[in-house]
Parts: sequence; C-alpha cells; structure tokens
Amino acid sequence: MSAVKADALQRFAAQIFARAGLPDAHAALVAEVLVWANLRGMDSHGVMRIPRYVALIEAGDMNPLPTLAIVSETAASVLLDADRAAGPVAMTAAIDHAMRKARAAGIGLALVRATTHTAALGYYTSRAAVAGMAGLAISASWPNMAYHGARAAGVATSPLSIAVPGGDAEPIVLDMASGIVSVGKLAQARQAGRPIPEGWAFDADGNPTTDPTRAQIPLPLGGPKGSGLALMIELITSLIVANPILAESLEGTETGRHHRQNGAAIAIDISRFGDVAVFRREAARLARALKALPRVPDTDEILLPGERGHRTRASRARAGIALPAPIAAELAALAQKLGVPPLSAER
Amino acid sequence: MSAVKADALQRFAAQIFARAGLPDAHAALVAEVLVWANLRGMDSHGVMRIPRYVALIEAGDMNPLPTLAIVSETAASVLLDADRAAGPVAMTAAIDHAMRKARAAGIGLALVRATTHTAALGYYTSRAAVAGMAGLAISASWPNMAYHGARAAGVATSPLSIAVPGGDAEPIVLDMASGIVSVGKLAQARQAGRPIPEGWAFDADGNPTTDPTRAQIPLPLGGPKGSGLALMIELITSLIVANPILAESLEGTETGRHHRQNGAAIAIDISRFGDVAVFRREAARLARALKALPRVPDTDEILLPGERGHRTRASRARAGIALPAPIAAELAALAQKLGVPPLSAER
Repeated sequence: MSAVKADALQRFAAQIFARAGLPDAHAALVAEVLVWANLRGMDSHGVMRIPRYVALIEAGDMNPLPTLAIVSETAASVLLDADRAAGPVAMTAAIDHAMRKARAAGIGLALVRATTHTAALGYYTSRAAVAGMAGLAISASWPNMAYHGARAAGVATSPLSIAVPGGDAEPIVLDMASGIVSVGKLAQARQAGRPIPEGWAFDADGNPTTDPTRAQIPLPLGGPKGSGLALMIELITSLIVANPILAESLEGTETGRHHRQNGAAIAIDISRFGDVAVFRREAARLARALKALPRVPDTDEILLPGERGHRTRASRARAGIALPAPIAAELAALAQKLGVPPLSAER
Repeated sequence: MSAVKADALQRFAAQIFARAGLPDAHAALVAEVLVWANLRGMDSHGVMRIPRYVALIEAGDMNPLPTLAIVSETAASVLLDADRAAGPVAMTAAIDHAMRKARAAGIGLALVRATTHTAALGYYTSRAAVAGMAGLAISASWPNMAYHGARAAGVATSPLSIAVPGGDAEPIVLDMASGIVSVGKLAQARQAGRPIPEGWAFDADGNPTTDPTRAQIPLPLGGPKGSGLALMIELITSLIVANPILAESLEGTETGRHHRQNGAAIAIDISRFGDVAVFRREAARLARALKALPRVPDTDEILLPGERGHRTRASRARAGIALPAPIAAELAALAQKLGVPPLSAER
C-alpha cells in the first residue's frame, strides 16, 4: 500500500477523466466525489472505480459530453434527463435543483433519468445538509441482489442516503445499501480468503454459501424488507421517469445488457418550518443522550451515522489515502495509456 | 378465537371511539384504519390497540377533540399541528394535504407535529397509490429499540412505508419497521413460549437473550443501518417540527414520559412526470419478471410488497377477522364500560 495525498489523488483522477473526454469541470467533479468517498473510508466507492468508469465511456454506456436537460418542471420538482452522464455530474445537478426548489417550495424533488454509476450518495445529501437542509437520495441499478424468495438476482443493492445538519459543522449522514452485505465486502472477503457468515450470499447457482470464492449474490437486508426497499426504489425512480432497468435486465433485452442507472434527490428546507439553529441544538442534545447510553461489550463509543467517516476524513486528510498495490498498478497503467503523469510524481 | 365480520368490527370500534369522546367522523376513521390492518393480517396494528387508545385518552395524552391547524404552508408543503389527535386522524389529513400539494407542485410534503400512535402507515401511502401517486410515510415515537452499540433502547422501531400504483387495482405497498423484529412479534413468541433467534433482542438489562419471557428490547435491522434509519426519521420529523421525542424520553423529562408521536407524509404525482398507465404497465411487467425467477426451496411463489396483505384481506373479507379470546374479552369489557352494544350482537 502506498499513501497518496487527497489533493494529488483528486488532481490525478481529474486528469484521467479529462483525458477520457469529460469537460474539465465534470472531470474535476467526478474526481471530487470519488476522492470524497476514499477520504471517508468508503474505498469501494472511491478511485478504484476509475478504470470501470473509463471502460463505461469506451463501451459507450457513459457519455463524457452529456447534455443535461430538464424534461419537465413544476413548482417543487424537475425531471432531469442526464444523457448518460457520469453519476456524480447528474446527481450533483439533481441535489442542486432539489435545493433550489426546496428554497421556494419547502421541499424539492429532482428525478434523474438515464445516468450512470451514482457513486457515494452521501456526497449529495451532505451537500444539502451543509446548506441547512435535509437531503435524501436514492439510486436504481441493474439486478445484483437476490429478491426475497428467489435464488437469483432480481433487484439491485439500491442505496438510500439521508443527511441533516448536525450539532457541529459535520452533517449527520446515513448512507446504506439495501443488501445485508455489499458486493464490495464480498470481494474483500474473497481477497482475504475469509469465510463469510451464513445468510450473507448465494453462489452463482442460488445456493447458500459461506465460501467467499463462491459467493456471488448478496442477500437482502432483513429478507423482504431489503428487497422490498430495493424494489420500491426502482419503482419510484426508474418507473416514474419511464426508464425501467430491472425488467430490461431480467428479460435479457439488448438495453438490459448495458450499464444504466436512474436516481432521485429530495431536499427539505428546514428553515421554512423552523429555526435551523434550534434544529442543530436539538441534534446535539440527542447525540449527547445517545452517546450516554450504556454500551455493549467491546464498544468504546456510540457513533452517529457518518461520524466514523468524518473521523476517517480527518486522519486521511493528514496521512493520505492508502491505495492497495493492485489498484495503484491498475491506475498507473491507465494513466500511462491516457498520457497522464503518474500519481507518484504528484505526491 | 371467534371470527367477526369486518364491517361489524368497524362499526363496533367506531362506537367505542365515539363513546370515548371522538367526533363521529374521527371515530369512524380511526376504526377504519385499525380494521384495515386486521383485514390485511397486521393484527398487531388492528383493534387490539383499542384499549390502549382509550387509555391514552383517559391519560390525557390523546386528545379526542383536536383542532388540526396548519402552522405554515408553502407551495409544496404544510406543517400540521395535530393537537394530539389520534394518529389515523392526523396522518390521513397529512397524506391528503401532501396529495393536494403534489397535484399542484409535483411533490407534496406534510409534516405532522404532536400526534399519537400513527397505526399502520400502509393505509396512508396506499391512499396516495390508489389516487395514482407514490406515497411515503414515516413516524417517530419514543425509544423502544436498541441503538447500535448501546445495550439500552435509544431509538424507536420507526416505520417507513412506500406505496405506488400496481399493475392491477392493488397498490404495491411496502410497510417496514426499522427493527429486526417488531415488539408485537416478541410478544407472540412470549405467548407461544417459543425461543427467539439469537440477534433479535436484549433483555431489560441489555443482555442478548433467546428467552422470549426475558426479551424486551428489539435490535435494529442490520445494526447501524436500522438504528441509523430510525434516528434519521426522528431528525427529519420531530426535529424539523421542533417537537423532539427521543431526547425528552432519554433524559427522563416529564414530557418524555408521555406518549407522543410525530410523522410525515410525502406524495409524488406520477402524472406530472409521465403516464400513469405506462407506470402501471411497467409495474406489471416487472412483477412478472420477478415472479418468474427461480425460487428458494419451500417457496411457492415470489410476492410483491403488500401482496400477502391483499390476499389476506380477500379471505378475511369473506371469513371474518378472528379475535384471540383475551382480546375479544378485553374489548367486551371495554364496550360494557362505555355502554357500547357487545360485538357478538352485531355479527
């Protein structure tokens, strides 16, 4: 592992995306969202995604030069066609539209049609929280998780993020997938050769397994709850914007074989209902009460959603972001191919 | 167990609430929402709650004659002070306000301040779905579930419901709590003397237990996910409407010892973004694709969220609702006390 400073990593990522065809502003934004995830310890949503994003551009599934268009607009909502933009470009536009609408109408909704991998949703909801609003984001993707009762993938591990202003500068930010375990965590167990607990995953044939080399299909969180939530996310994003993802993939259509995502962002302007300073004070009060609860053995501290990420960011901002050797090598090869100066020179 | 026809049970419940002091229209609505839950097999949210509701009125925590007031209103939202109304009265008003706003603004939000037990949230979201909208409802209550890392109750088993129009007349309706198990299911295991699985609950002292007679505190669904979701529900309802519930209870204030709930309802008008008929067709298509997936052993059919409830309603509408003897006896005693004709005479 070699540790890289966040700003150097972000510049490197932006250069790659610029060479891959994104306008500079979009390249910088995608780099910022990925490195934001690395800084907060969510490495599965960080720069390790860069080669995949570039491959999506090469395959024609991600459009490096999208025209984001408002298809329809009401007092409190927009329907945004993202023209297969990189997810961070589309979702940042979405939360900004949602916040603009919320300022005027109390709540704002941006539905996003036809984007690609939406990356870490907490980035977008935190953006609302930092502006004194509540933010909510969801995204819909192709089937990679078992639907309850099925022994095959039927829904996506669709994530949900909610963020609000916290008692101090840091927002309280929940960012959870609807699976009992992420595809990334299964990959980590596979790399480590560590058996996985029962109830986490099926193998490719839909049989329960604890063998990490065979685990392929994560199971939903709480059975029908997790797969139900994932299904509702497809329904209220993909089906409202008339761009179905799951059915296309499950039916095996040509469209269904391509990487496609839809999403939605909601903002609620807290100041339209009360005093944001009072909200923050009450959030701090509740945090104190929760942290004072008696703890289970081996738990040093009770944490709020997102709190571990805030701390990781503080330490990684100082110490840098450690990239596993295979990922560093993959990024170096990609940089060389695209004519981007190697990361090491930037440290 | 004696089976009672739904309409007789609903008239009986309405008479009880009317005698307990609710206006006839409110009494009928609360009865309808409770019997709706019984019909759909959610008996824990049905008429077994009647004695508790009457006790809440007697204790002064539920106001039988509330004045529901719009505290503030924007193009897409209302803040509704429910004046400690019965939850079904407040939440039905909320979803109706949300739908009214959604028709005008694409999305509508009703925040509910100071209500009481909100009953089965699926009733309200289904109301939106039947009108061709997506509905979302949440409610915040006092601490009865462990917060992740704590060995004591820190958050509520706060429920979340989402409903959309389905392929046929029945909506697709998810109604899930944020606990791994409901307090009601723990009570059922206790009555049956059945050990509960590891990981479901703590005893009163915060120790893990499989003994149903000792299980008191349900654990959150997926650890930090479930308790994080429950916390966010408190933050985006109770803290936005400046009526905190968890902190009051955790600090042991006088206010915190009273039964209080807050809630929120959101409606999205699908017709403002596309064609509801297309939405329904795509929902049917996705349902077909999911139902065609290979099934796990001992699963006869893959079900959509709410589908089991629709079927139970069909059978219970014919066969009646079976009331366990202790509940029937409790209701009979309450009816006698309030001068309501016994249920048996109404069959």
